[in-house]
Amino acid sequence: MHFKTVALIGRYQDSGLDAPLRRLARHLESAGCTVLVESDTATNTGVTEFKTASYAEIGEHADLAVIMGGDGTMLGAGRLLARSNVPLIGINHGRLGFITDIPIHTATDALSQVIGGHYEIEERLMLEGRVMRGDQVMFSGVALNDVVINRAGRGGMIDLRVELDGNFIYNQRADGLIISTPTGSTAYALSANGPVLHPQLQTILLVPVAPQTLSNRPIVIPDSGVLSMTVTALGRVESGASVHFDMQAWSECQPGDRIDVQRSKDNVRFVHPLGYSFFSTLRRKLLWNQIPQLSNEGE
Amino acid sequence: MHFKTVALIGRYQDSGLDAPLRRLARHLESAGCTVLVESDTATNTGVTEFKTASYAEIGEHADLAVIMGGDGTMLGAGRLLARSNVPLIGINHGRLGFITDIPIHTATDALSQVIGGHYEIEERLMLEGRVMRGDQVMFSGVALNDVVINRAGRGGMIDLRVELDGNFIYNQRADGLIISTPTGSTAYALSANGPVLHPQLQTILLVPVAPQTLSNRPIVIPDSGVLSMTVTALGRVESGASVHFDMQAWSECQPGDRIDVQRSKDNVRFVHPLGYSFFSTLRRKLLWNQIPQLSNEGE
Amino acid sequence: MHFKTVALIGRYQDSGLDAPLRRLARHLESAGCTVLVESDTATNTGVTEFKTASYAEIGEHADLAVIMGGDGTMLGAGRLLARSNVPLIGINHGRLGFITDIPIHTATDALSQVIGGHYEIEERLMLEGRVMRGDQVMFSGVALNDVVINRAGRGGMIDLRVELDGNFIYNQRADGLIISTPTGSTAYALSANGPVLHPQLQTILLVPVAPQTLSNRPIVIPDSGVLSMTVTALGRVESGASVHFDMQAWSECQPGDRIDVQRSKDNVRFVHPLGYSFFSTLRRKLLWNQIPQLSNEGE
Amino acid sequence: MHFKTVALIGRYQDSGLDAPLRRLARHLESAGCTVLVESDTATNTGVTEFKTASYAEIGEHADLAVIMGGDGTMLGAGRLLARSNVPLIGINHGRLGFITDIPIHTATDALSQVIGGHYEIEERLMLEGRVMRGDQVMFSGVALNDVVINRAGRGGMIDLRVELDGNFIYNQRADGLIISTPTGSTAYALSANGPVLHPQLQTILLVPVAPQTLSNRPIVIPDSGVLSMTVTALGRVESGASVHFDMQAWSECQPGDRIDVQRSKDNVRFVHPLGYSFFSTLRRKLLWNQIPQLSNEGE
Repeated sequence: MHFKTVALIGRYQDSGLDAPLRRLARHLESAGCTVLVESDTATNTGVTEFKTASYAEIGEHADLAVIMGGDGTMLGAGRLLARSNVPLIGINHGRLGFITDIPIHTATDALSQVIGGHYEIEERLMLEGRVMRGDQVMFSGVALNDVVINRAGRGGMIDLRVELDGNFIYNQRADGLIISTPTGSTAYALSANGPVLHPQLQTILLVPVAPQTLSNRPIVIPDSGVLSMTVTALGRVESGASVHFDMQAWSECQPGDRIDVQRSKDNVRFVHPLGYSFFSTLRRKLLWNQIPQLSNEGE
Repeated sequence: MHFKTVALIGRYQDSGLDAPLRRLARHLESAGCTVLVESDTATNTGVTEFKTASYAEIGEHADLAVIMGGDGTMLGAGRLLARSNVPLIGINHGRLGFITDIPIHTATDALSQVIGGHYEIEERLMLEGRVMRGDQVMFSGVALNDVVINRAGRGGMIDLRVELDGNFIYNQRADGLIISTPTGSTAYALSANGPVLHPQLQTILLVPVAPQTLSNRPIVIPDSGVLSMTVTALGRVESGASVHFDMQAWSECQPGDRIDVQRSKDNVRFVHPLGYSFFSTLRRKLLWNQIPQLSNEGE
Repeated sequence: MHFKTVALIGRYQDSGLDAPLRRLARHLESAGCTVLVESDTATNTGVTEFKTASYAEIGEHADLAVIMGGDGTMLGAGRLLARSNVPLIGINHGRLGFITDIPIHTATDALSQVIGGHYEIEERLMLEGRVMRGDQVMFSGVALNDVVINRAGRGGMIDLRVELDGNFIYNQRADGLIISTPTGSTAYALSANGPVLHPQLQTILLVPVAPQTLSNRPIVIPDSGVLSMTVTALGRVESGASVHFDMQAWSECQPGDRIDVQRSKDNVRFVHPLGYSFFSTLRRKLLWNQIPQLSNEGE
Repeated sequence: MHFKTVALIGRYQDSGLDAPLRRLARHLESAGCTVLVESDTATNTGVTEFKTASYAEIGEHADLAVIMGGDGTMLGAGRLLARSNVPLIGINHGRLGFITDIPIHTATDALSQVIGGHYEIEERLMLEGRVMRGDQVMFSGVALNDVVINRAGRGGMIDLRVELDGNFIYNQRADGLIISTPTGSTAYALSANGPVLHPQLQTILLVPVAPQTLSNRPIVIPDSGVLSMTVTALGRVESGASVHFDMQAWSECQPGDRIDVQRSKDNVRFVHPLGYSFFSTLRRKLLWNQIPQLSNEGE
């Protein structure tokens, strides 16, 4: 068997999760797996009849983590389990996501396939970063989607000097700057006019939000260097800048602080049943499969 | 009665049009209207039991023209009837359009309302233009959607000098330039990154297609002036430029030719049942009413 | 003489302003004008030898207000003098702006022309708005550039329900929403992918910032209605939303609050020497007059 | 010495090229190099006192090819010499380009450095493609910038079914589709809203031109697969579609034809003096180093 010990992790405070969670856990047990339910998930859902485990214990003992929720739940679990190398599989409890691509009603079938050895594994790069004030590390984090630098306060522009391995790229005056992984290219970066990056690319994406320089465009760079963003000014307002590693925010950035971002040495590993297609997810999520829409003549 | 003589016009070569056309014509007759079927429509559909009329006769005698087809059919009829001031109502035979906003299955109800006096009338501006070679008019036309200037040949850029009432706007090097009405703003201009203009605006929209100058943006200008586009160069290829007034194309433009475009003195008048909402059409056509789609956290 | 009493207003805390301010004041006096220096300007620059006046007094007595600074100074003065109908002329002390289009070194010549009667006057619409909590007005303001609604806190999306005269336009999930005048179309709205609106248009522009719905586009609407934006949700974070009327911000917006925005009954009036061209300003500011830039073949 | 035999290639019909070409050739000879002048270049410029060579002979004997002209000249020579692996260096005779980044007045210094061994070498991927009608190859080509599929005729949309290694990506209804290398990302793709790709990336970029589906975005994919574009329809007009490999066009495409594009096994190799910076070129060409431009307040 490919995945002997399987952990189940649910969306935080998802009220209807108990029944499908219990069903899936029993299915896995009856298939011969050892089941671990993540401790908070067990408490929140009341599904307490299985062995529980912390994220650290899951990282140590599990061969597969099944995430039930949305893309956000998957991102959070991905970060917490990144160092452990446990592969993740996403069951969507809600509308289908980009990375939680198995609908809940096909979950038992899909998991049967996967634990029977019929699966693909996909490595996705992550980012890690530090906020530096002189030599001091003020904050650090890991991101599977993106690192975002923007104003902490209520509007106004931020000025950043951006370098790659010490080579000057540009001064960016904008609402903010998104440093995105391929996974994050279909999240916030996409709404700020970024391109879609295939998840297997070994690249990093820079997307400014509402840049003052109108000829600015998103830039895709190799994953091999260190990006440094120095906060050079914060507009008129006296409040600081924020740095977000996915959802973890630090809002105390001051002019002169430098945010260093690079590829993490850890990857996240996603498991898919055979036949997974990134483009199929893309078409469905971005409604590309719907008929064209403009009122030109000839119709 | 508000509309005594009603003309029916169908999409050219729409094979399934005979039954709904006949049904609608009978319904109008039983409601006391005089029905005219446009001559080519009668021939194409075989619905020959009603009085037929040419576009010119419709323009002279009809109080209302009912267009059955898609947005393209409506645009074509709008241009042909523009001088006559006959109002148009669009019945969609196919998928709903921007300006053919009445589904075929509600058409009899909607027309009953309208001929009973429960309707709104909406004036929409049109463009008229001429291609000038020195003092000579080489081609002229009218457009309800847009005037488009682009390469006649197989690729490459076009260079245009653009002026408004003799005031220089810009030199545009691009695949092409779209001069659009508010109605046309949801057609080709939208796919070239133009904004949506509310149909009641008295404005003209300029949208370059793939402009070389990256800080170029669509421009909205008053409807009161004369726009002049002079072809200054045609890239490397020796073939000419094309000018399109909606679908009518003239492909013999040479460097030095000037295309003058201004608001037409004729408007098109669209009739809607009460309760028509432009924004509702927009939401439906652009799929805005579908749930948001990006994989940010918090889901 | 066209402008008998002329007020001079300078950028707040512009250290080098005293010499050109004094020169201009003397020039106007020698041309027979009565000169008023705005009180704070007099204090900040030490140019105290002329009669001083508050904004209220300028509004009452001045026939023309000369603004020395940048576009921001002009916007601020425009709002403060809007009710009084005093026309404004902008002298750029720094780099040229969109609305402060007279370079400082040609200021005396330009003003001589203008007070001699050789000028154009241009009316520009303004917006006024109120934040409503039930029946209570929580905040109100006037904007010459734009009203912006966004997150007060450190990131995340805002959800707005947007209506025009009670007709539903869309639900907008985005970083923010910009409601812009034609004047504001070359400010923040432009960096968020909005079109340029000619300053004489009687229209209002809606531009979402980083909208989640990828088929969203800027919309241009008539200036005759009332736009209502209801805050329906504020993402995950507990902090409020901000509303900005140009630079005046109110950050206490809660879910359920409604922001009503409509055209102000007051206009701002800008004075230009004869020969002013909006397009010329546009070309210069957006660097359109620079040579095209892409590395296609044929070069 | 690193480069013993050096070929000189000039822009076709550049009238002022003879003097700088002769100067550079003499400089290289005096530095001990064997100089070859490309045959057509010699004929066009009248610089006939050096040994001449065809492209094939240059490919066989030269250790370095010096290209004098613009980016287009460089692209053309790059394609012709791709199989031979001869590295290229670009001297700009005209305005600076993206890949002809050495100004003519510093050319002798730069070449002295390079032949003295102080240089960097940069590999750039190319595309190769075939137009297939059933089993028959109708046309084939190589591109350093991009493969572009669009309408041969005078406007209208093209419909393409796009697949990667047999996996369906999307149906694209658009003016055209650009399949670009990283090098081409700063050419036509950029004016159609594509991102900038760092030249070292091993990726391919898909950018639709004026796509009908408004949620379409540029996509970056790995360089390891075969892209297939099948022409499914050609709009209303009876003329065919065009395929362009850089500037080489074939305009006989019919519905049913399939265009296969993949990474070429040959790379182009560019030589730069030490200190070359892609980002510096980008800032200069896209005018990013100019001051920000929008008229927000606070100025």
